[in-house]
Amino acid sequence: MAEKAFGAIELGGTKTFVMIAKDKTNIYSRKIFPTLSPNQTISDITNFFKDETNSLDLELASIGIGSFGPLDLDPESKTFGYITSTPKEGWQFTNLKGKIEESLQIPAAIDTDVNASALGEFRSLLKQDIDSFVYITIGTGIGGGFIINRELVHGLVHPEFGHIRIPHNKRMDPFPGICPYHRDCFEGLASGPALEERWHMTAEMLPKEHMAWELEADYISLALMNLICTVSPQKIILGGGVMHQLHLFKKIYQKTQRYLNNYIKSKYLDEQIRDLIMPPKLKDNSGIFGALHLAIDTNK
Amino acid sequence: MAEKAFGAIELGGTKTFVMIAKDKTNIYSRKIFPTLSPNQTISDITNFFKDETNSLDLELASIGIGSFGPLDLDPESKTFGYITSTPKEGWQFTNLKGKIEESLQIPAAIDTDVNASALGEFRSLLKQDIDSFVYITIGTGIGGGFIINRELVHGLVHPEFGHIRIPHNKRMDPFPGICPYHRDCFEGLASGPALEERWHMTAEMLPKEHMAWELEADYISLALMNLICTVSPQKIILGGGVMHQLHLFKKIYQKTQRYLNNYIKSKYLDEQIRDLIMPPKLKDNSGIFGALHLAIDTNK
Repeated sequence: MAEKAFGAIELGGTKTFVMIAKDKTNIYSRKIFPTLSPNQTISDITNFFKDETNSLDLELASIGIGSFGPLDLDPESKTFGYITSTPKEGWQFTNLKGKIEESLQIPAAIDTDVNASALGEFRSLLKQDIDSFVYITIGTGIGGGFIINRELVHGLVHPEFGHIRIPHNKRMDPFPGICPYHRDCFEGLASGPALEERWHMTAEMLPKEHMAWELEADYISLALMNLICTVSPQKIILGGGVMHQLHLFKKIYQKTQRYLNNYIKSKYLDEQIRDLIMPPKLKDNSGIFGALHLAIDTNK
Repeated sequence: MAEKAFGAIELGGTKTFVMIAKDKTNIYSRKIFPTLSPNQTISDITNFFKDETNSLDLELASIGIGSFGPLDLDPESKTFGYITSTPKEGWQFTNLKGKIEESLQIPAAIDTDVNASALGEFRSLLKQDIDSFVYITIGTGIGGGFIINRELVHGLVHPEFGHIRIPHNKRMDPFPGICPYHRDCFEGLASGPALEERWHMTAEMLPKEHMAWELEADYISLALMNLICTVSPQKIILGGGVMHQLHLFKKIYQKTQRYLNNYIKSKYLDEQIRDLIMPPKLKDNSGIFGALHLAIDTNK
C-alpha cells in the first residue's frame, strides 16, 4: 500500500515551489519552476504531484497552498480559494484551490504567502509558548503574516501590513513613493522596487555604507514601532529579498528602540531585542514549509 | 443559602465603578466613587462588596477588574496583577489583584481597561461570528483593546495603540504634539488634552464647524487605516470622551475611505462602512460590563 504523504505549494509571482513530504524532516521530493499562465502553472503543479506520487509510491492525504494574492479566504464566499483582483496578468479570478482539488481529487488548504511563511517560521520555533507572532516580508512588495492567540489572522479580508502609513519627512527624503494606491505608504517607501527607483541601484548593488540603508532602517523601524504598539508581538521575523542585507538588523534594533523611547518596558525591547526581531530561521523556505503545515493541519 | 453573583470593577484614573450582578441583565447593585490613594480606593472597593453582599444575601464567586495601567499581565511574573510604572501618583507598583483577592477571599481576573471595554462591547454583539474585533478609546488618552481569534490579545506587554506613529503634516498642523515619550504619535496629536492644548478649548466647547474636527478626523482615519491594514478587523468600536462628538463619525468614514483608496475590496470598507466602524453600544458602560464578563469567564 502506498505510504501517506502531504503536498505543499508556494505560488509566487515569478516562481512556484512544490514539495512532497511526510513531515518537516521527511521530504520525498521538491521542485521549483517559473510561474507562467494559470493553465500552464496549475498543470505543472498537478503533473508534479501525479508523477512523483506515482514513481515514489506515495498517496497524498491533502495539499497546502501559500499563494500571492489578493485571495478570497472567506469560506462562505462563492469565490473561496480564488486569486481575485491581482495585477498579475491572466491570473485575475483564478480558482486556484478548486482547480487543484479537482485535478488531484484531494482536499487543499489555502492561505496567503505571508501567512504560510508565518506558519512555517512559527512552527520552527523551539519554544512554543508564544501566542503572538508576526512574519514580515520586505522584498518586491511588503506584507505581514500574523499568528495571534496561536492562530493565523484572517479578519475581514486579510492584513495588508505593507500599506500602513508612516511619517515621511519629505525634506529629508523627497522621493514621493511608488505605491499606485497610496504613494508613500510603507511599501511605497521601503520595498525593493522603491529602493531601486529612489537610488537607481538594486538592493544587492547598494553598498553597505550608502545612506539608503539608514533611511530604509528608519522606515522599517517606524513600521515595527506601529506593529509593536498595535499587537505587542512576542516574536517578529523580518524576511524577504531586502532583508538579505543582514547589516540592516543592527540599525533596525537601534532605531526601533529610539522611536519607542523606553515607553514600553520589556527586556525584549531593551537588551534582548535581538531575540524579539530576527531573520527567518528557514531562510527562503518559510513559505513552502508553512504550506506543508497547512496541509498537515487539515488532517488533524 | 446566599445566591451566587459576580463582582466587577472598572478602575479609572479619576473614577472607579463597581457592580454586583448575576449576569449582564441581572444587576444587584452598582456604585461610582472617585479614585483616590490606593489604600483608600481599594478599601472603598472591598467595603462596597462586603456590605452589599451582606445586605443582599449574595455570595461572590469571583471578581473581574478592568484597570488603568500599565499593568503586569504575565501570569508567570512575580508582580502579576500589579499596576506598574504608572504616572498616577502613589499608584506605582500597587498589587491591585492581590490586595482585592486577599481582602475578599475570592479569585479575581484582571485586564486593561480597554481590553475590558473591548470584551464588554464584543459580548454585546448580536452576531457572534466575528473573530477580529477592536475597541479604541479616544479621550484623556488613546488606547486599543483587541479581540483576535475570539480571545483578548495580550502579547509581549500589552498593545499601546495610542502610541503608533502616523503622518503629521507640520505645515498644515504646526502643533508639536503632547506625548512626553513620542511628541506627535497618535495620542500626542489627537487625544482630548492634545485638542485642548492646540485649540485652547475642550472638545465639548469646540463648535461642530471648527476646523479642529477636520484635523481630528484626519488623524483618527490615518490610525484606522493602519489598524485595518494590520489586523483587518471585522468590527471597530470608537469610544471615549472625544468620540461623544458623534458628528466625527461621518468625517471618519469619508476620510478612511479616501486614505484606503479602494485598495482593499470589501463592502464594509465601501457602502457598509457604518457597520464596520461604530460608537459603543453600551455607551460608557463597556468597561464595567467587560469586567463582569472577566469575572464570569473565570468560572467557566
